[in-house]
This record gives sequence, C-alpha cells and structure tokens, in this order.
Amino acid sequence: MPLIDELQAIVGADHVFTAPQDTAPYVVDWRRRFTGTALAVVRPRDTAAVARVVRACAHHGAPVVPQGGNTGLVGGGTPDSSGRAVLVSTRRLNRVRAIDTANDTITVEAGCILQRVQEAAAERDRLFPLSLAAQGSCTIGGNLATNAGGVQVLRYGNARELALGLEVVLPDGQVWDGLRGLRKDNTGYDLKHLFIGAEGTLGIITAATLRLYPLPRVRLTALAALPDLGRAVALMARARDRAGPLLTAFEVMSAACLQAVARELPGTRLPLPADDGWFALLELSDHEDDAHATALLEALLAAALEAGEVRDVVVARSLTESRTLWRLREDIPEAQRHAGGNIKHDIALPVSAIPAFVAATDAALRARFSWIQPIVFGHLGDGNLHYNMGGVPGTPLATVFAHEAAVQRLVNDAVQAHQGSISAEHGIGQLKRDLLPDYKSALELDLMRAIKAALDPTDRMNPGKLLATAAPSGDTVQAR
Amino acid sequence: MPLIDELQAIVGADHVFTAPQDTAPYVVDWRRRFTGTALAVVRPRDTAAVARVVRACAHHGAPVVPQGGNTGLVGGGTPDSSGRAVLVSTRRLNRVRAIDTANDTITVEAGCILQRVQEAAAERDRLFPLSLAAQGSCTIGGNLATNAGGVQVLRYGNARELALGLEVVLPDGQVWDGLRGLRKDNTGYDLKHLFIGAEGTLGIITAATLRLYPLPRVRLTALAALPDLGRAVALMARARDRAGPLLTAFEVMSAACLQAVARELPGTRLPLPADDGWFALLELSDHEDDAHATALLEALLAAALEAGEVRDVVVARSLTESRTLWRLREDIPEAQRHAGGNIKHDIALPVSAIPAFVAATDAALRARFSWIQPIVFGHLGDGNLHYNMGGVPGTPLATVFAHEAAVQRLVNDAVQAHQGSISAEHGIGQLKRDLLPDYKSALELDLMRAIKAALDPTDRMNPGKLLATAAPSGDTVQAR
Repeated sequence: MPLIDELQAIVGADHVFTAPQDTAPYVVDWRRRFTGTALAVVRPRDTAAVARVVRACAHHGAPVVPQGGNTGLVGGGTPDSSGRAVLVSTRRLNRVRAIDTANDTITVEAGCILQRVQEAAAERDRLFPLSLAAQGSCTIGGNLATNAGGVQVLRYGNARELALGLEVVLPDGQVWDGLRGLRKDNTGYDLKHLFIGAEGTLGIITAATLRLYPLPRVRLTALAALPDLGRAVALMARARDRAGPLLTAFEVMSAACLQAVARELPGTRLPLPADDGWFALLELSDHEDDAHATALLEALLAAALEAGEVRDVVVARSLTESRTLWRLREDIPEAQRHAGGNIKHDIALPVSAIPAFVAATDAALRARFSWIQPIVFGHLGDGNLHYNMGGVPGTPLATVFAHEAAVQRLVNDAVQAHQGSISAEHGIGQLKRDLLPDYKSALELDLMRAIKAALDPTDRMNPGKLLATAAPSGDTVQAR
Repeated sequence: MPLIDELQAIVGADHVFTAPQDTAPYVVDWRRRFTGTALAVVRPRDTAAVARVVRACAHHGAPVVPQGGNTGLVGGGTPDSSGRAVLVSTRRLNRVRAIDTANDTITVEAGCILQRVQEAAAERDRLFPLSLAAQGSCTIGGNLATNAGGVQVLRYGNARELALGLEVVLPDGQVWDGLRGLRKDNTGYDLKHLFIGAEGTLGIITAATLRLYPLPRVRLTALAALPDLGRAVALMARARDRAGPLLTAFEVMSAACLQAVARELPGTRLPLPADDGWFALLELSDHEDDAHATALLEALLAAALEAGEVRDVVVARSLTESRTLWRLREDIPEAQRHAGGNIKHDIALPVSAIPAFVAATDAALRARFSWIQPIVFGHLGDGNLHYNMGGVPGTPLATVFAHEAAVQRLVNDAVQAHQGSISAEHGIGQLKRDLLPDYKSALELDLMRAIKAALDPTDRMNPGKLLATAAPSGDTVQAR
C-alpha cells in the first residue's frame, strides 16, 4: 500500500495533509528563515497512532520530522526540500493525562500548549515553572525536545530539570514507556536525558511526567538601574545571598534595549531614565505574605544602593505594575523587529565571565564594524545572553546583514574563548548545524554520532538537524 | 611489554599493587558481600595517567574496574573473580582545581572526598549540598558514577542535578573534556547525563564542575511525632506550601526505628515517646535570621498540631540539639547492624503511593513471615524508603536470611505494582543486576545495551555491572 494510503488508514484522511496550501503552515519556521516541503503532514491523535505512523514510515524508508507548536528558532522542526519527509505534528496529542498533587507531578501529552500546562497546574494550586515568550503557542513536547529555558531557570532549571519521565516513540515505531513520577531512580542509564534536547533526532517525545511546585503566595518585581554589568553580577550575588531560593528571576538589559523599546513601541513609558548603564529585573517569589516579601526586597535593595551597586530602583506595587516592568523586558525582541532586524546570538557563559566578555566583544565589534549597535539582554542568573547586534539608528538593513557571517564568527569565537556555549537555550537545528564542528571537539561529535547511529541507524529521525550526517550503522567512537 | 610493566611505567611501581595483602582492601566491598580479584590495583595521580592506564588496558584487552572511596552498597566497584581486571582507584586524583564564586561553581577531581568538597565550598561561603552518611570516605567521582542521593535531594536534587560538566576517560583511553560551568548549553546530546549513574560502565569520570549555592544563615531542625504515614505526607505538603524551598529535608522513620536505636545503642535518649506511629525530621534552611526561621517553623508546626497531623514535636534550640535529632535518624542503620542484620530495600515510589504501599506490603509480609519486623525510614520528600526487614527481637538471624529471596521478591513486586523503582539511590552494580530484567522493560534494556555497545563495543569498562552482558558491537535496538 502506498505510504499516503497507510497514513490515511492510521489517522484518517482528514488528518493527512498533502496539498501545498494545507502543508504550508507546517513547512516554514515562524521566523521564516527555513522553508521545506513534506510528502505529507500527519496529525495523529494518540501515542499508538504516532507509533503506527512511524512504523509505516520506517517500512517505506521515509524520513520523519516531528513538530510541536512550530515556534522554534533554529529550523529544527522544518523538513528539508526533498519532499520525502513525513512531518508528524503532535498538536492533537493534547491531553492532560493526570495530576498527582501529593506527588507534585503532572503527566501531559506532547502537544499540550505550555500555557495550558501552567494553567492545569495552577487550577490545582501548583506551579509549573517553565515560562517563556512563546508559551501561548509552543508545546511541552517541543520544549522538552529542545530543552527550553526561559525566565525562571535560575530557580527551577531548564525543561530538562523539570522532567521526571518520558514516553517516546522510537525510530522503529516501538514505544518506550518511561513515564515515571520518581525523584530517585538509579536503575541504569538515564534515557530521558538522551531524548531531552535531542531535537527529535532520536525519537518523538509523546508524553511527559513533570515536576510541580507549591504556588508562591506573592511575587514581587523590581527594576534597578546599575552603573555597569559588573555591578549586576554583584547585585545578583547579594540577592542570592539574602533571598536564597526566593530569588526566582534575574534578568539584565542594557540601556540601549530600553531606548529601543521606548523609541520603537508607541505608548511605552520608561519608569527610570535610560541614558546609559544597565538594568536588572529581579523577581522574588515568597511563600509567606506580601509584608515579608516587601521587607526582604527593600532591605536587599537598600543595601545595594548603599554599596553603589544600584543607582536607582522601582518596585512594582501591584500586579499591573509588575506586568509593566516585565513587558519592558519582553518587548525588546519586538522593538528590534520594528527597528528592522538584527544579528542574533543566543549564548551562555560562566556568570563570572560575562562583564569581561561583553566589554571585550562590544569593543572588538565596534572597532571592526563602525555601524554596529549592541542590543544585549538576557538571563544573567543562567549566564545566558541574547547578544544581538543591530545598526545605530539610520543604518541600512543591508549593511547589517552584509556582515552577518563576520559578526557571528567574531562573537562565537569570543564565546569559545570565554568557555561559553554558542547555543544556550534555542538549540542547533539547521541554523547552527554547520557551525557546531568549529565549536565542539571532534571527540564529542563522534560520541554524539555513535549514539545517533545506535538508536537511529538508518538516520530517518529528523535527519540533517543537529548533526549533518549520521555515521554509518555500526561505526563507533573507537573505530575513529 | 607485559601490562604490569606498562602500568608501572605510567604511574610508578609504588602505585601498582599486585600482592594480595596490598590489593585486599580494594577487592572487597565495604559490606563484604562481594569479593573479587584483580590483576593489579593502579592509583594514577592525574587524568593523563588514567588515560594512559586505560589505553594500556585496551591494548592488552584487560577489563577496567573504576573505584572511588569503595563505599558503594551494590558491589559496583568490586572486580569479578577472574583476576583479569585492572582496578583503577581514583583516590589520588584529589585536587580541587578551581572555585568560581561569581559563577557559583567548583571544579574537583574525582577522588576528592565528598566532605572535602563541602568544606572547600564552605571556606568560600558557599554550600555544596550533597550530603549522605558516607561523606567522610566516599568520593565525588563515585557519587556521580552512582548518582548518589542523600538527605537534601528534596531541595537540591541528586548528584546528577548538581553536575554542570564532566571530564571522562573513555573506554579507549581518549579524554572527553566536558568541564563546562554553564547552566544552559543546548548544543547536542547531553553526554554528561549518560556517564552520571552509569556506574563506570561507559568510562571513568576523572573530574567534575559542580553547582554551588549560597550558604544558608540558619538551619533549624524539628522532630515531629505523627499518628501515621498518611499524616506525614500531609505534613510535608503543608511544609512545602508554607516554607517553599526553605524546606531542605523531610525524613521519616517508623516508631520501630527509634525503638531499635534506643534498644541497641547505649546512651540514646529519645526526645519523644516512640511507642507507635511515625516520626518526621524536618529541616528549614533560612537566608534571613534565626528569628525568622523560628517563627516560620513554629507557625507551621502549630497549624499541623491543630490539624491533627502532628501529635507532639521538639524543635532543636542549638546546633548540638539539632545534631542529636539528626543522629537518631543516622543511627538507624547502625542499630540494625547491632540487632544482627536485616534484608534491605532501597526503593522509590511516587510520594502519593507511599502510605498505601507501606500498609499493603507490611501486611503482606507479616501474613507470610510471622517473624518479620519492618524497620522503615527514608527520604519522604524524594519518595525514597529504606524498607528494611528484620526479625522481631529474639528471631534467629538464620530465619531472617533463609527467607531473603522470598522477602525481596515480594517487596520488589509490590514496588513495581505501585510504579516504583527497585533502586532509588544505591544503584544496580552486581547486587541487583540479575533482578533488573524482571523490573525493567525488554525495550529499555535493549536501549541501554545499544548505548553500551556504541560507547564500549568490547565490553571492557566495568563489565558485569548493571548489565549482565553487553550486546555485540553493532547490534542495535532496531536489530532486535
């Protein structure tokens, strides 16, 4: 039976798309940097159907491209242009299977929208802490496949740290049921950590059992103006020392970021002057009450003012004020889009290396590219900067993008020199795949290829993502 | 050149032991359940020497058994009786390579004693939170190879969650330098999680970069008497809700545990009557001050008393009193040894399943074995019970051990029926290796064997631990 007929028999003809107008939304990534074609887009309803689809593809030798909410930033969910791949959308696998409040776990299917998972937890007075800009449209399966980060990693970790168990459809269509709600389980290799962050190249995550936390009673937000980035590191150390795990977010942004938001987005009001320096957005999450949280935050900020770490500060007095402060941070990418675009780098560094890295790399870029304007913001607590390079106002976009490769090379080389990572939270996908060999040891790539060959010997699972080509089956590290 | 000569050339004759009196302490585990023999015990001084030793072994086809402090409980570091294996002791790799207080990381070699890592962190006003009974003699390399747990997992996670980067000598003697101090790094498969918990079967961990935390200013401990285990789960939920992440330990023990400590260990004074019921040991770690921590703990306990969750409670008023309370918990294994031994189970369950599991399994055991006395304690916050079975006072030890296999079978079957794990924190090693196929799916074992074959195709790295036999090189999951 032709593969398309088999797929229709498994999921129903209504959920197998082959016409270009139907497949179009699935075969281009949301930043529209990658466009592919698919033999078909298939939307199975449950894990058994995913398994049957993958088995059918295996039988026909068709590549499989898993896709969640299609919000990825590196083209990891976009098929190549061969037209051979079957794109498996997990969007209809959207059930909350179970919530166990005594165990503080939730079991959800891969296609659940992240915000829905947060809401399902909140309905039972629990926190699911993963939180990021795309939460209204990204899926938890995609979050796990890419090990998503976001704004609360400082306290709760990345998607990886929030997963206790997984269900995965393997490249041959077998289903691995690893849906355990256990916080300790030392019975062999930890397979879930292999599939998390593998960007769908080892199998399709179809469900997960995730950690929940008690819901904090109060969240307090403050925006602080700082003389420089070194002082931001000092303020964060002070906040961690004084507030311990109650410090749940510590974001930084340069004055240029706030200037861009004020300039590009009408109606923006800056609560502090943003002529120069840096800004930190702090969040405390408190399990006691507003009075306790306020006293703790104010004592912390007063000491920081006295020590010269902070020049000025505003504390949000209401949820609305808190949202206004967070919006300044969240609006930076939108302001950059309005300004015409920029060259993005999602990088991680040891926190201790960040001030020196930014000073040296800003200077090197300005020396070489006279038009450049750094727009730098990120999750300081995680050592994760969105180190983006636009042009000073008036720079033609063509000038910016003509130098894209040279700018990226300079930045990535500097990241490597500071023992950092060229992809902190967005992954590799297609975008950075061919850069990876320049920034990862040959040995580490060999180990990755050996694992890929062991679990997907015919290289049919999301081929061409993360790794350019799989090693032939049976090849091993030792054979190198 | 004979292998022994090569090893002597690499590490010096003083650090290659072959005489039985010299190898004896290394070839028996500390509980003396497993005894093996080794061709040689080798004590390299640095990573380069470990790599050369492993390459020499590869060249001669000799199996390699890595060993840290030799405190493991499942025979994972004990060679088999063939006398072919080279035992590589990491004890001389004991340097603290770096502490980065701004990044909150420490880089240590595998042979560092856990307590030394804690001390090195404390000297810089930081906390390394891994904490367990063997900390004065176990090594951090062994902790990582076995993914050790302990008493602060509730807040800080297992050894796995504390590792940011690893350095590993691979089975062919290549050195993977994955010593990153990054909290976000999405550049491919997460290799460190493959080596952590692999019990030395995929390579030798020679160094690690670990997370540090700010040192809490105050730690408060309380011992609460509870009517039953269900109330312990309720009290823990209340404590998590009220204290959030300040709750850093929540241990439970049955009245029989405290009775055994009082009976077996002279000089023990029980701070609360232990006629029946259960006891919880809570710890709060506070970054403010004693007054804040005390008020929080007392309010929490008062509410629990009023709700009937707690019958009686003592709060430690000094560090000495706190140590006395902790000692009651820590002395349970010693009291059991005095009493003559027992059948141990290190199990994990969803926290929500624990009361029903204990009730049903205690009843089933008592119904079948009239002499049995459950001695149950553990880390309730992690769902981890040390579910140990002794005899009622006066029972001959022979009676207990005559039924060991039947008791273990009943307990492990009950664990499986409650979606638990037969090894929470001690690992598999030799002790549970042959049980594993009864409690793990064939598919999961196939995946583990495929990974083992990909990274160690000749099965020379700690053979016979965790997995009985490795699949032949090139075999894959799909080939099954």
